[in-house]
Amino acid sequence: MNQDVVLTGDRPTGPLHLGHYVGSLKNRIALQHRCCQFVMIADLQALTDNVDNPEKIRDNILEVMLDYLAVGIDPTRSALFIQSGVPELAELAFAYLNLVTLERVGRNPTVKQEVEQRGMGDNVNAGFFLYPVSQAADITAFKATLVPVGADQLPMIELTNEIVRRFNRIYATDTLVECKALVPATGRLPGLDGQAKMSKSLGNAIYLKDSPDEIWQKVRAMYTDPLHVRATDPGHLEGNVVFTYLDVFASDRAHIAELKAHYQRGGLGDMKVKGFLNELLQAELAPIRARREELARDRAGLLRLLREGTEQARATAEHTLREVRRAMRLDYFTD
Amino acid sequence: MNQDVVLTGDRPTGPLHLGHYVGSLKNRIALQHRCCQFVMIADLQALTDNVDNPEKIRDNILEVMLDYLAVGIDPTRSALFIQSGVPELAELAFAYLNLVTLERVGRNPTVKQEVEQRGMGDNVNAGFFLYPVSQAADITAFKATLVPVGADQLPMIELTNEIVRRFNRIYATDTLVECKALVPATGRLPGLDGQAKMSKSLGNAIYLKDSPDEIWQKVRAMYTDPLHVRATDPGHLEGNVVFTYLDVFASDRAHIAELKAHYQRGGLGDMKVKGFLNELLQAELAPIRARREELARDRAGLLRLLREGTEQARATAEHTLREVRRAMRLDYFTD
Repeated sequence: MNQDVVLTGDRPTGPLHLGHYVGSLKNRIALQHRCCQFVMIADLQALTDNVDNPEKIRDNILEVMLDYLAVGIDPTRSALFIQSGVPELAELAFAYLNLVTLERVGRNPTVKQEVEQRGMGDNVNAGFFLYPVSQAADITAFKATLVPVGADQLPMIELTNEIVRRFNRIYATDTLVECKALVPATGRLPGLDGQAKMSKSLGNAIYLKDSPDEIWQKVRAMYTDPLHVRATDPGHLEGNVVFTYLDVFASDRAHIAELKAHYQRGGLGDMKVKGFLNELLQAELAPIRARREELARDRAGLLRLLREGTEQARATAEHTLREVRRAMRLDYFTD
Repeated sequence: MNQDVVLTGDRPTGPLHLGHYVGSLKNRIALQHRCCQFVMIADLQALTDNVDNPEKIRDNILEVMLDYLAVGIDPTRSALFIQSGVPELAELAFAYLNLVTLERVGRNPTVKQEVEQRGMGDNVNAGFFLYPVSQAADITAFKATLVPVGADQLPMIELTNEIVRRFNRIYATDTLVECKALVPATGRLPGLDGQAKMSKSLGNAIYLKDSPDEIWQKVRAMYTDPLHVRATDPGHLEGNVVFTYLDVFASDRAHIAELKAHYQRGGLGDMKVKGFLNELLQAELAPIRARREELARDRAGLLRLLREGTEQARATAEHTLREVRRAMRLDYFTD
């Protein structure tokens, strides 16, 4: 078996939305059939910038779990686990802190940018600043060979591989395994308002759990072409969110090409196109929502699944940690 | 029982010397009778600046253990444990990283000074830079109320108490306990060469395990008064290491006062004073060395003691971590 090992996951800061669905969840459903996949609910990472708000993290763990199961991530094929349930990850991260300089971590453009965006400056908390080291621990604990990430996260993969090489060289071992980034071919799904990213904080997202009415209200409010005032006006496709979504969700390419041409020459109203997109989204989300509602009735069952997945993940992480400790000569009681 | 809890310990980077004996070991022998004492062999902390040299740390763990037992630290009264054997410490440290800014840690004068002294600059590794946060985890895991430290380490205690207050405030709990520094009344024992600190790297230390001949050779080479060339010359006491040691190790104060007066007015040779100090040190160290040699014969027994102490320490740290996780609402599987 020369199977790839995948580590992926989400920060439980809210229920998952169409951006997650298109950008990562669908990919995981495919990957679980040909890889050994670990899906982590990253509660500790979420805490790094939600220190004051642990309830938010707690409340969203089962929401994320529900989203995973509802879209078809199969707990018999993927280990769904909670980060804080695998204490070996903290031990590994702690060992890795000695393998990176502060300056090296600070050079990570993602950290740099996020620190700037959130106006943290020098007041960045140490946990947030160091989360790429924690991610290196998450990835290497499972000896992941494939890590699905956005293009903006490539420097994090690079840092992880630097740590892997440094560890293996210093301790003359091949315990840790380098990984490859798996960057999705399709770009990110924009927000309803046309912003590049769909996110809870921007309030521009359609959630997998949204009701039919919520979906329709959100589609109605989508950003289109501000110059396209009357149906008869010629419309523009660039930055037109409705058409971007149609490109993603419609399977009938010819029909979409036709709609686009019609829209561009004038005579096709926004509400008509939105109505069509709405139908597609409703059809896509209805079965997911139904499964989600059914699963949500059995909270104990969800917790049991999460606990089982966590035990499975922990067994793997424990195995790696034992090897790491042996390589570091920290195995005093076992010789 | 309103007993103080003490956390103390050493980095296992070499066998312990007279400076440790006077500055901390003797104190621990006293404290173990009236406090609940945890004595940590800080292997992970030692690794923060010995990444490339894990063997050095490993080789010195039992050396330190031997020194502890030989001087009279009683494993039935003090829990002697190894830091890496208590993984809860890494978990706690990781949680605390979110409670301090990088800037706050960098303001720690001990870290600042050590980074400068070792010429690390920006190349300081993250583990070394953050070791005060790791120390906060070590202290709070045992709910230590008293922490014996040198005056230079007071900022570390302050940082620990800041973390304690911040944690208790954010999570509306009284789980963590503030501690007090216990700064020894007597100053540091200087090195044989008159430098302020006795240390392995300076090569100016008498070790608890030194042979009678090694002790005598080191006493003979001690720094005295460079102006005191002939025995008949008047001698100076300031910076005269032999007399500093006599002040510490001689119990007959009147006799020492007499020797000092004689030395100052001239007519008392260095070798004579050194001979007297040698007698005192030999008498102090002979029984320690004998016990040490006997204990060293039973390596398995030493490891067993260390393992038992580690289990005891771990039980306490586990209890604290459970409370911490409950306070942080990370106890998903227990409600």
